[in-house]
Amino acid sequence: MVIIMQTGAPESEVDAVLRAVEGAGFRPWVNPGVERKVIALLGAVDAEKAELVDHFSALPGVERVTLISEPYKLASRRTRAEPSLVDIGTVAIGGPRLTVIAGPCSVENREQMIETARTVKQAGANALRGGAFKPRTSPYSFQGLGVAGLQILAEARELVGLPIVTEVLHPNDLDDIVQYADIIQVGARNMQNFRLLQEVGQTGKPVILKRNPGCRVRDLLMACEYVMLEGNPNVILCERGITTFEDATRYTLDLNAIPVMKRLSHLPVIADPSHATGDWHYVKAVALAAVAAGADGLMIEVHPNPAAALSDGPQSLRPDKFSDLMQSLTGLATAIGRELPVPCE
Amino acid sequence: MVIIMQTGAPESEVDAVLRAVEGAGFRPWVNPGVERKVIALLGAVDAEKAELVDHFSALPGVERVTLISEPYKLASRRTRAEPSLVDIGTVAIGGPRLTVIAGPCSVENREQMIETARTVKQAGANALRGGAFKPRTSPYSFQGLGVAGLQILAEARELVGLPIVTEVLHPNDLDDIVQYADIIQVGARNMQNFRLLQEVGQTGKPVILKRNPGCRVRDLLMACEYVMLEGNPNVILCERGITTFEDATRYTLDLNAIPVMKRLSHLPVIADPSHATGDWHYVKAVALAAVAAGADGLMIEVHPNPAAALSDGPQSLRPDKFSDLMQSLTGLATAIGRELPVPCE
Amino acid sequence: MVIIMQTGAPESEVDAVLRAVEGAGFRPWVNPGVERKVIALLGAVDAEKAELVDHFSALPGVERVTLISEPYKLASRRTRAEPSLVDIGTVAIGGPRLTVIAGPCSVENREQMIETARTVKQAGANALRGGAFKPRTSPYSFQGLGVAGLQILAEARELVGLPIVTEVLHPNDLDDIVQYADIIQVGARNMQNFRLLQEVGQTGKPVILKRNPGCRVRDLLMACEYVMLEGNPNVILCERGITTFEDATRYTLDLNAIPVMKRLSHLPVIADPSHATGDWHYVKAVALAAVAAGADGLMIEVHPNPAAALSDGPQSLRPDKFSDLMQSLTGLATAIGRELPVPCE
Amino acid sequence: MVIIMQTGAPESEVDAVLRAVEGAGFRPWVNPGVERKVIALLGAVDAEKAELVDHFSALPGVERVTLISEPYKLASRRTRAEPSLVDIGTVAIGGPRLTVIAGPCSVENREQMIETARTVKQAGANALRGGAFKPRTSPYSFQGLGVAGLQILAEARELVGLPIVTEVLHPNDLDDIVQYADIIQVGARNMQNFRLLQEVGQTGKPVILKRNPGCRVRDLLMACEYVMLEGNPNVILCERGITTFEDATRYTLDLNAIPVMKRLSHLPVIADPSHATGDWHYVKAVALAAVAAGADGLMIEVHPNPAAALSDGPQSLRPDKFSDLMQSLTGLATAIGRELPVPCE
Repeated sequence: MVIIMQTGAPESEVDAVLRAVEGAGFRPWVNPGVERKVIALLGAVDAEKAELVDHFSALPGVERVTLISEPYKLASRRTRAEPSLVDIGTVAIGGPRLTVIAGPCSVENREQMIETARTVKQAGANALRGGAFKPRTSPYSFQGLGVAGLQILAEARELVGLPIVTEVLHPNDLDDIVQYADIIQVGARNMQNFRLLQEVGQTGKPVILKRNPGCRVRDLLMACEYVMLEGNPNVILCERGITTFEDATRYTLDLNAIPVMKRLSHLPVIADPSHATGDWHYVKAVALAAVAAGADGLMIEVHPNPAAALSDGPQSLRPDKFSDLMQSLTGLATAIGRELPVPCE
Repeated sequence: MVIIMQTGAPESEVDAVLRAVEGAGFRPWVNPGVERKVIALLGAVDAEKAELVDHFSALPGVERVTLISEPYKLASRRTRAEPSLVDIGTVAIGGPRLTVIAGPCSVENREQMIETARTVKQAGANALRGGAFKPRTSPYSFQGLGVAGLQILAEARELVGLPIVTEVLHPNDLDDIVQYADIIQVGARNMQNFRLLQEVGQTGKPVILKRNPGCRVRDLLMACEYVMLEGNPNVILCERGITTFEDATRYTLDLNAIPVMKRLSHLPVIADPSHATGDWHYVKAVALAAVAAGADGLMIEVHPNPAAALSDGPQSLRPDKFSDLMQSLTGLATAIGRELPVPCE
Repeated sequence: MVIIMQTGAPESEVDAVLRAVEGAGFRPWVNPGVERKVIALLGAVDAEKAELVDHFSALPGVERVTLISEPYKLASRRTRAEPSLVDIGTVAIGGPRLTVIAGPCSVENREQMIETARTVKQAGANALRGGAFKPRTSPYSFQGLGVAGLQILAEARELVGLPIVTEVLHPNDLDDIVQYADIIQVGARNMQNFRLLQEVGQTGKPVILKRNPGCRVRDLLMACEYVMLEGNPNVILCERGITTFEDATRYTLDLNAIPVMKRLSHLPVIADPSHATGDWHYVKAVALAAVAAGADGLMIEVHPNPAAALSDGPQSLRPDKFSDLMQSLTGLATAIGRELPVPCE
Repeated sequence: MVIIMQTGAPESEVDAVLRAVEGAGFRPWVNPGVERKVIALLGAVDAEKAELVDHFSALPGVERVTLISEPYKLASRRTRAEPSLVDIGTVAIGGPRLTVIAGPCSVENREQMIETARTVKQAGANALRGGAFKPRTSPYSFQGLGVAGLQILAEARELVGLPIVTEVLHPNDLDDIVQYADIIQVGARNMQNFRLLQEVGQTGKPVILKRNPGCRVRDLLMACEYVMLEGNPNVILCERGITTFEDATRYTLDLNAIPVMKRLSHLPVIADPSHATGDWHYVKAVALAAVAAGADGLMIEVHPNPAAALSDGPQSLRPDKFSDLMQSLTGLATAIGRELPVPCE
């Protein structure tokens, strides 16, 4: 941590800061002889001490405090240099093999879910998604089938042999979700629902943590800490678009964030082009790009009949478009030294 | 709702849309004789039907679907033309008298809270804030005193006679909060935690709903519907800054949003300049501006010793700065035809 | 400037940085004995040296370089502690008296301009705006009357006695503009048209520099340097809204920026609520707020018949609405210790 | 265009709008019998009429006006269905062969430029970039060599046989630039310098138009109209990052914009990962992604010694990193059915 004093801050203020630094257990180191003092803290300012930034910032005479190390720890590359692999049964996300999680936004009924499961399995997906509890912007919209939806998902897994990803919205639903699902998704709107993160962490299950569209990469990595501190290292980061002024698409996929996350963290990173664009026309291009940028996998909304979908129809791919995407992905994966699962017969 | 077809969409696609419109219970009305068809829905497309936008958007040949009415209902000015008043005991927020809610970010201990309560009461505040459960970005930071904090808040209320605002983070804490607090705050990070909103709605208590920094005004108004549909009309909107590219301040207060919310909704609107700026230097200017723009009240962080605060020190006003703000507010309020409470002796 | 080395950067890289620092004429100061080195530069790193940040950032082993002082100089409060006054004839912008610059977006014809001039003068405005050269997003839109428009503006000045503000778009127009106008406006789209800024600086005329909606406050202050380095200190900063994800208004007025600019710079600051909102419904609220936040003046679009305006009709106030705004401003100004001009008889 | 009236707008206001629509030469079409009127305009509302949106929006009783067609014309896919090819000598941008434009930010001296030219040619680039006139944020920074820089560029072209891209900042420089350069770049800061766009259009030379970081895709396409209306169809769109709240990188590459531009316009699209990220660590990943998303080419900053660069060192690739990128691109190009030039011997 580096504390920058205001120009001409009186000696008494500099002294008070030095005492505060020592009081916090650090040895201060201050530049000699110039008008503007800079105080460096000797000793490791680890994640537990990051909030000293606020403390020192509020002292009289302090202009600015800069944190040198990142405020997250367990998610950081500095804690673990090699990439983490999260095993979801069919694949270890984070290794050379790409993960494609596909399925409808919501589980609507048995037929829709089973049909979609068969289709995406055949096209080469290695996990199945479907929402049983749905966080809808409007209370007047379809809110999901709840436990009945989980049971349909479990049946689909049984039939096609793919692990299941579903989202948790409320702590009370967690027991049911743990019973039926293989991977728990924490949605973008709950990325900073810290208590939920802790409870999800305690389940030990693999967790897909979606970036909130208004949060920075470092906020996402801080949110991981809440899960990982509970002893659960199986966190998968998911970029799904941020809010910007551009309105030609629903969100703006933050492509830069993919190599940034891979550099700052050892955790696997996937991308969700369906939510990032909000429009199926752009899903294929953005999906290919995310993989080319280094994403370890994708999450794609697929629906047998998007116009009849109870949610997210406009961004869902029809089965034939999904197969086409998978074929293009296969060529791309080879070109960049990754692999895709072989579609089934 | 207006459905705009793609240029040259074949008649079969137009027909399919017309059938879908009729199937949804509306009478379609389509422009004659031009290359590009526009289909208007006759009949009220109320909030319950807003998701038809997605449905129609996903039909072949559809270029774009425009919702004419807002997708929220109970929060809308069209449902209630006159402003709503929310009674919090000392004041009815939304009327001519301004509300100033002040206090520390976190309840840290009995002395700090009682001292702050006395100070802000004396300066003219009409409600007291303090966090017992704290949503901190870092799991390594102070997380609040929990129920012990609520009890200190209740004691402060007893002593100074001001109602208490505190934030809920987890459904399990709601019973305790209802027992001790007068107004429940739903923080920015939980604005779209829809299940929590429903549970807060069921308490019937006044609710301050803070805008998520990545969400639009209309998303905030949609979130209100979750509270209000449970039969709780006592919702207070709070603008607390949005995420933008400007980094001279922590967030950007969306000043425009104040008159926008007042025009679109009948609910009272307050502003939180402390979080919106993240820097006490700017709190006074922004507070005065928010009131000049039509805000019904303010939420201000005050701490007897910001440098020792366990959270949000840099944005907290010292008691003397808070008194100064209250004096300036008094003059301003008179100039714009509003009133402030008289400071106590 | 503070240079932060990567953790474990080898001694050879630290040495190379130290040599580079010395080569640039500074004495480096480096913290003893810890794994991560921090190098501070002793000696003033003034605006001329700010680009060393890029130079040092590109050296091997460097993690990050932090500039301690602002990269602008002439516009900075550190160069001049007391506020600058810019004299525009009727008023010195930056003093206790507020400036209200009003008029149509474009000069459309003699009648429209003269009528508006009389109206706004009567309501108490102290300067007149009107565009002769118009930067329109579409080449198919009205582009302004050119020199004929300047002549109409000059006639209006003659008749009502208010100084004239008009925008420059092209260096070739500058001679004409200098001949007719009292204050030159550099529009938001040209804020970083640095060559134009230099040429405007050379005229010595007061300059209103509007913030580009995608630029930070510090970029605006850097742009001022281009004008001021030419020997022209008469720069007026104008906040007119930034681009954000919120689409209820055309732009988001960055209210925080008003006290931020006043703190970082000695230059006067005005606000343009017409462009910031794009909707006349919100102009009054936002105008009052900007003044309450400390703005030294306002720029308001007024049109005798907004529905017939050739540009910016939806955000223009009708004369009666403008008078109403001026009356409210008068009360507000008094409350905050400022003055407004007395409307004429 | 569709005009949506306010709920309960009186018949007199509806009539006034109908008369205005007819006055503008359209036949209005209004829905029967419901409380809220919707007025559609029959007849083509082409780009020349787009400003009627403002006109109708300002009429009493109008809630909102929606433009159905895009406000740009020459750049639109509707005007030309097949992709445009822009011939720059070595390649026709927009066809199957990818374009890679590489070189330093600024021409610093003869040696640096010639060396870079040889290097990038050898690695397979098919055009050369270098700035002679530099738009620097700070007036205290290196501003380019001017005409001497153009001459060095011309010499480099002579030696390596690659066409030259350079940026224009001021109309007065245009003659010199036309004499020496093959492709004229209009930088992000001048994207809405409409007069400059017209003058560049008149040269007939291929133009790379970089998106301003605060502007929407449709603003970029409107800016193209200024060039194309002068009779110059040779416009190349360039995505180079937008301003967002994320600060881990300098800008956020708007990846979505690549397929969006390809769908809305027939013009070729390239991407600039160097400016979009501001950090060479991320250039390769983002470059590959842009091509995977459908970009027709890339613009990459390369410098023989980034730490000694007079501008943009931190985002410049060293020659070996550039060669590595070109090799990865070759594999990727094949996988997606595109081609790259063969590196020279």
